[in-house]
Amino acid sequence: MAQDKNKQVTQITDMEVDFAQWYTDVCTKAELIDYSSIKGMFIYRPYGYAIWENIQHQLDAEFKKCGHQNVYLPMLIPESLLQKEKDHVEGFAPECAWVTMGGQDKLEERYCIRPTSETLFCEHYKNVIHSWRDLPKLYNQWCSVLRWEKTSRPFLRHREFLWQEGHTMHATEEEAREETQRMLNIYADFMENVLAMPVVKGIKTDKEKFNGAEETYTVECMMHDRKALQGGTSHFFGDGFARAFDITFAGKDNQLHYPFQTSWGVSTRMIGGIIMTHGDNRGLVLPPRVAPIQAMVIPVAMHKPGVPEAAEALLERLKAAGIRADIDESDQTMGWKAAEYEMKGIPLRVEIGPKDIEKGQCCICRRDSGEKVSVPLENLEAEVEKLLDEVHNGLYARAKKNLEDHTKVCHTVEEVKTFMETEGGFAKTMWCGDVACENAMKEQAGVTSRCMPLVQEPVGETCVCCGKPAHKMIYWGVAY
Amino acid sequence: MAQDKNKQVTQITDMEVDFAQWYTDVCTKAELIDYSSIKGMFIYRPYGYAIWENIQHQLDAEFKKCGHQNVYLPMLIPESLLQKEKDHVEGFAPECAWVTMGGQDKLEERYCIRPTSETLFCEHYKNVIHSWRDLPKLYNQWCSVLRWEKTSRPFLRHREFLWQEGHTMHATEEEAREETQRMLNIYADFMENVLAMPVVKGIKTDKEKFNGAEETYTVECMMHDRKALQGGTSHFFGDGFARAFDITFAGKDNQLHYPFQTSWGVSTRMIGGIIMTHGDNRGLVLPPRVAPIQAMVIPVAMHKPGVPEAAEALLERLKAAGIRADIDESDQTMGWKAAEYEMKGIPLRVEIGPKDIEKGQCCICRRDSGEKVSVPLENLEAEVEKLLDEVHNGLYARAKKNLEDHTKVCHTVEEVKTFMETEGGFAKTMWCGDVACENAMKEQAGVTSRCMPLVQEPVGETCVCCGKPAHKMIYWGVAY
Repeated sequence: MAQDKNKQVTQITDMEVDFAQWYTDVCTKAELIDYSSIKGMFIYRPYGYAIWENIQHQLDAEFKKCGHQNVYLPMLIPESLLQKEKDHVEGFAPECAWVTMGGQDKLEERYCIRPTSETLFCEHYKNVIHSWRDLPKLYNQWCSVLRWEKTSRPFLRHREFLWQEGHTMHATEEEAREETQRMLNIYADFMENVLAMPVVKGIKTDKEKFNGAEETYTVECMMHDRKALQGGTSHFFGDGFARAFDITFAGKDNQLHYPFQTSWGVSTRMIGGIIMTHGDNRGLVLPPRVAPIQAMVIPVAMHKPGVPEAAEALLERLKAAGIRADIDESDQTMGWKAAEYEMKGIPLRVEIGPKDIEKGQCCICRRDSGEKVSVPLENLEAEVEKLLDEVHNGLYARAKKNLEDHTKVCHTVEEVKTFMETEGGFAKTMWCGDVACENAMKEQAGVTSRCMPLVQEPVGETCVCCGKPAHKMIYWGVAY
Repeated sequence: MAQDKNKQVTQITDMEVDFAQWYTDVCTKAELIDYSSIKGMFIYRPYGYAIWENIQHQLDAEFKKCGHQNVYLPMLIPESLLQKEKDHVEGFAPECAWVTMGGQDKLEERYCIRPTSETLFCEHYKNVIHSWRDLPKLYNQWCSVLRWEKTSRPFLRHREFLWQEGHTMHATEEEAREETQRMLNIYADFMENVLAMPVVKGIKTDKEKFNGAEETYTVECMMHDRKALQGGTSHFFGDGFARAFDITFAGKDNQLHYPFQTSWGVSTRMIGGIIMTHGDNRGLVLPPRVAPIQAMVIPVAMHKPGVPEAAEALLERLKAAGIRADIDESDQTMGWKAAEYEMKGIPLRVEIGPKDIEKGQCCICRRDSGEKVSVPLENLEAEVEKLLDEVHNGLYARAKKNLEDHTKVCHTVEEVKTFMETEGGFAKTMWCGDVACENAMKEQAGVTSRCMPLVQEPVGETCVCCGKPAHKMIYWGVAY
């Protein structure tokens, strides 16, 4: 925490009064993000980027455990390449940024900055896949992508954002379908076990699926304001792109086959999700497993003999135990420091002063509950680890309760509309599968379909909209 | 090593016959890189990218030890922003790729894709630097940059390449100068201790320095073909950009001051350097400390009972000892496997067959020397670690000898010209400091100045070119 020690800790907007403004306040006051001179393009500041690095390291390790390899493909896509898959280009072309000049020369063909890289991966796969021995290809890329959207919000909607995109090719449909599920589960487990965000795993409707995909799976989360955030998606493409790009391999049967494809991704939107799931009126609240600083050591009455040494010894012990810890020995007041590290969402403040030293203890304050406990120094590491787990579990339980309390079974459009207007959350209904009903739900109740959960439970027998027999249970909501 | 087991191991061009073609052959046959449909934009394949990841992890840890923080800034620069520093824009504008369309709309101002990010960092620094308490700012960014060059070669000259760019701001000139040196030393140590590439540390002439910098420091390396490669650079900017961007801070004296700036970077060019420093006619030779796979376990007579189990046990022991190890249990021949892993430059092949099992040993073959040693299984981990260090030291010593053997003191332009034509390498001369002499050296001897080494030794008293009194010792060469 080297920077901006001198700044005033200022009030943020009350989240119950204006959630959108509260959100923006947290993003800027916790020093996660800054604006650039291009609308919709943001600067990931050190504290915001450090959260992304923690997400990256943990997800990357999970990907590699299943045999995925990282690659890096060009950021530019020739227009003719983008156009090879019809549904895909229709979805993305309207929001592409186009490069038309290279140096002083007008380009013969314009290039778009990648909005996603399916077409580039397919072009490369055509070069490197020839035989069944070349499969599967399990590639992943960490990069930024660009989508020229009209509106923007920090983390939630950037023109340029950071993400990972996995792109895999398989010899059989079955294997590709397994991969699609495997990656969905990795995202779900990560969000629950690391980000403390409960998820609903499900499949998107045809209307909401990814451009060019046969099926899109999603993990949906509920934010504090009861709106939905799509946490990550995993797509099964069948062999559609392979056919469009003429990618074939010689099978064990010596015949040519088209391979089956998946792609899957999560982005820095997840940081927006963390903020809106766990934050409160004192600022950011970070789940300990992604917090750049898990414990901030603060010496009390720093001028007293022995205090700085005791605080520094404490810091060293925490670091040695693998806890991400830092210390603030600046001349700011205790009140300023408390407010600052609450704003920054640091899970634990560890205070130590002359009286604590006398008693052989320190005082630990939890960011989530505000609770303070005295901890004997001999148990320091174990207690801090226990507290970090308790903070994680507490955050998860609170978010889970929010999700459950505000998910409601509805049987009519009117019921959904009233629920959304009075309370908000996820409306759980039956649906006939007809896009006309999906469109009607948007028009009449203001909701979009979130997903058809993988764990289905019949909550009725007829479609919430048209009343015809229905066999699919579906979640509706208002999404970020 | 999951992929392409079926491909034929093919011959590569002899490096003494056609070094350029040998280089391209290694890049493609070792599966480091692939071409894309845009000229000059390459695909970093898994094996090539894994080398970059190892470089990243180790350098990033060094950066963080000195307090640097990672950030991510937009990839687009408005033309007006790029133009704020005169020398800088003159250098970069001719090789920018320009975005002129966003979605369906022509943009009011065109944006270039970052060729480097000094201007973006300055814009952000103006927002976040106000007081001496905000300094230093020690930021670094891992990203790709784009330079629309006419010619291209894998790793050495891409239109888009991966790099890191550090950008720092300091309260005093002295601190900024120290930072410039510190980062140069980090690069030099990394190249010598990790990449096994000896370097010459020095300062660039005004003609060769970075656009907008007051001083550019460099680490120069000699390739196998005796040409020079710039390994990394570190720039001192003075307060020039700060003045151009009007970045000021209130000092302890309550007066406004301009901060002093540095930037420094290395790129995936280093991978080209590794290839051209250590490679041979059997392919890539990787220094162990960046090799994605340090030891490849190969079972001999795999169908014999006990062999697969013994090989797998060996793999597990190596992994447990923190050695990056893999196993090839495919049905390819031993000859194929030897050739394949030589092409890939894997430092050690660890073979184990029925006779080895009987004797309680395995057979380890070094990629650098071809030497084979029998190692008792009880000493496996220690012996492998020792061998990896020996390979590193051997590669370094060989490269150091190449550098020393082909660095020659010269006293006249004619002598330099003859040296370059007959032998090639670094010509070490005195220089008066006049750019006219530097230009004449290019015209008459075909060389550019590489650097004025930090460790100076007088090799004469007069300029190699004009014969006037000279006090600077300088290296000349032909550079990639």
